[in-house]
Amino acid sequence: MRSAISIIPVHGIGEIPLGADLGALILEALVANQITLQPHDIVVITQKIVSKAEGRIIDPRDVEPSHMAHMAAAQGHKDANYYEVVLRESKRIIKMDRGVLICETHHGFICANAGVDESNVDGGRHITLLPIDSDASSRTIRDTLSAATNLPIAVIISDTFGRAWREGQVNIAIGVAGIDPIESYAGVDDPYGYHMQASILAIGDEIAAAAELVMGKIDRIPVAIVRGMHYRAVEASAQTLIRPANRDLFR
Amino acid sequence: MRSAISIIPVHGIGEIPLGADLGALILEALVANQITLQPHDIVVITQKIVSKAEGRIIDPRDVEPSHMAHMAAAQGHKDANYYEVVLRESKRIIKMDRGVLICETHHGFICANAGVDESNVDGGRHITLLPIDSDASSRTIRDTLSAATNLPIAVIISDTFGRAWREGQVNIAIGVAGIDPIESYAGVDDPYGYHMQASILAIGDEIAAAAELVMGKIDRIPVAIVRGMHYRAVEASAQTLIRPANRDLFR
Repeated sequence: MRSAISIIPVHGIGEIPLGADLGALILEALVANQITLQPHDIVVITQKIVSKAEGRIIDPRDVEPSHMAHMAAAQGHKDANYYEVVLRESKRIIKMDRGVLICETHHGFICANAGVDESNVDGGRHITLLPIDSDASSRTIRDTLSAATNLPIAVIISDTFGRAWREGQVNIAIGVAGIDPIESYAGVDDPYGYHMQASILAIGDEIAAAAELVMGKIDRIPVAIVRGMHYRAVEASAQTLIRPANRDLFR
Repeated sequence: MRSAISIIPVHGIGEIPLGADLGALILEALVANQITLQPHDIVVITQKIVSKAEGRIIDPRDVEPSHMAHMAAAQGHKDANYYEVVLRESKRIIKMDRGVLICETHHGFICANAGVDESNVDGGRHITLLPIDSDASSRTIRDTLSAATNLPIAVIISDTFGRAWREGQVNIAIGVAGIDPIESYAGVDDPYGYHMQASILAIGDEIAAAAELVMGKIDRIPVAIVRGMHYRAVEASAQTLIRPANRDLFR
């Protein structure tokens, strides 16, 4: 029997300094919000504050643009320094057109501009890079939250990605701790006896998307709690949400 | 100030006969679930029951496979009749490999096998096609719900789509009524004064994804209520979630 899920915004998390203990800051904010963590709460955290805490932030004027960065700048809306940062965050360019670079990052994520982002930093002077290892970052935060509450807690670090074929962006999971982000029905019979083969839900991405509904882009809400959801509480990796290249028709 | 959102499963919606009045059935189920609709509730409905009510269901043995359907069957896991139905639901094949067809449907959706689906029908004997006009279907159901309650209500019809580059499927919106599925921040300054250009959220897809978290694939929960969300309550179309071909790098 499925029951209702709540998505609860966590207000009042201020500017994140380099080296901040995000788990501790989230615990403080939860107290201020009068939110008491419950078993199996999923704490969704935007990439932006993780990158800030981990120092994954850069002044693009500090990099020397390469030839290809200048080429991208000539075709796009950003400057060559920005594109040089994008190129350095990438191991492969999937597609390049009209100044948009669809990149495979060093982690294997495929997204526009390698996840390099100017918004919600400091007005465009600095830009953020994706965390080096968002699963590890998730586990660190989860450990802090679980130790303080003595409860099983899951953490998802989310980022906003565009999609092929569809307008607009959606939140997806780039790091997880304590939750299997994949819910597979492969080999399961549906209620009509049909043997499902391809029904594999990316619930990690769906939880990230759900969390964004209370976050928005200008409300300074980088954390939300997803409560009441049944999931497999195991150690897992957001890397399982990346389709292996040999089964991907679009690389 | 953003507040919490609830995602509430609607249990007890049984088998949907051809010609069923889905709005009326949902109202009945809400009573049985002791759920009272509130202003601006978003009622998310899976494509499967809309297709059943509208007779968008077919016995694949009734179609004569073409040459290309036989070719697909020779490379894939389904039979030629299935692929013929897929081809007839398509106006273009974006990619075809290893028996997977990524199709552009007559509506413009780009998805695997043109949205033709065997699960949760009748054990594989019949298969469902996408509704002819899911926006119109959404409006019809919304009108019934709004008339019965005298409240502003939004409706989203959802389906489960795969994505390029990422494992697993997520729910997206194929039809909407009473809600703008796009939340654009283009031209808006973030709290740090950065002028956002590309921040356009596909909240219609994110709401559909959130709803699936209480639906699953085997629990016979084809309807969920998303409550407490702020959105632009206007007439709109899920077609705005389809990226125009001239701005799409992956067609």
